[in-house]
Amino acid sequence: MNRHIIIASHSTLAAGIAETLRFFEGEGLKLTVITAYVDNKPIEDTIRDVFKDYNEDDEYIILTDLMAGSVNQKFVENIFNKEHVHLIAGMNLSLAMAITMEPKDSYISEKRINEIIEESRKQIIYVNESLAIVGEDEEDE
Amino acid sequence: MNRHIIIASHSTLAAGIAETLRFFEGEGLKLTVITAYVDNKPIEDTIRDVFKDYNEDDEYIILTDLMAGSVNQKFVENIFNKEHVHLIAGMNLSLAMAITMEPKDSYISEKRINEIIEESRKQIIYVNESLAIVGEDEEDE
Repeated sequence: MNRHIIIASHSTLAAGIAETLRFFEGEGLKLTVITAYVDNKPIEDTIRDVFKDYNEDDEYIILTDLMAGSVNQKFVENIFNKEHVHLIAGMNLSLAMAITMEPKDSYISEKRINEIIEESRKQIIYVNESLAIVGEDEEDE
Repeated sequence: MNRHIIIASHSTLAAGIAETLRFFEGEGLKLTVITAYVDNKPIEDTIRDVFKDYNEDDEYIILTDLMAGSVNQKFVENIFNKEHVHLIAGMNLSLAMAITMEPKDSYISEKRINEIIEESRKQIIYVNESLAIVGEDEEDE
């Protein structure tokens, strides 16, 4: 089993997140990066290339920028009837780090994906309020 | 009141997200973009520049990549005792779009920031499962 991680966005968000992942995890990190609409290549062709050498034993984890966006939508059309292909929309850095750091010796379970999503949601934090809470705790002591 | 929106990350994620925001919202979108550690300028100096012309009547909304990261941490040290300065960690595109599209004619409330955060959390979606739910609904009909 090989794991393929695809990071896809409108414009260059995907390239930025990939570069930041490599900043933390090293230049050797293998990713497929899709920055849609920055050149004249239709997104449909780009996605077809992703699955050109599709192997049903391999695992594909696709992270996209926006649930409502066309990039995500075009992937939706291409994942039906493919096992081990996971599509997650609305990525942030926490999510991408967790996915890229997940052990590669076995398939990632749906349960584990949901855990990672739940954790990455919690990492969107209104820091002023979280600091205020810490401050209150300290005053109690 | 002027609203200043600052998008900050390790490496180039912030530049990518800014470019994607401009893809959706137009090249005229005003943002301060901080891509830490891509040059030799210390992050402390970059953040000092952000607040160089600090005006207590202005509003500052700072989006960072990672709660646990040094970029966010360095902002934490610089927001104490500043009114109308909001720091949000763990940004994704939904969050950044909502913040940049918020009406600029009045201060953004803490309540509104929490609403936007809650919505952007929900936009991190395991698409396979959401499709499965849609599929079941359709079968019911």
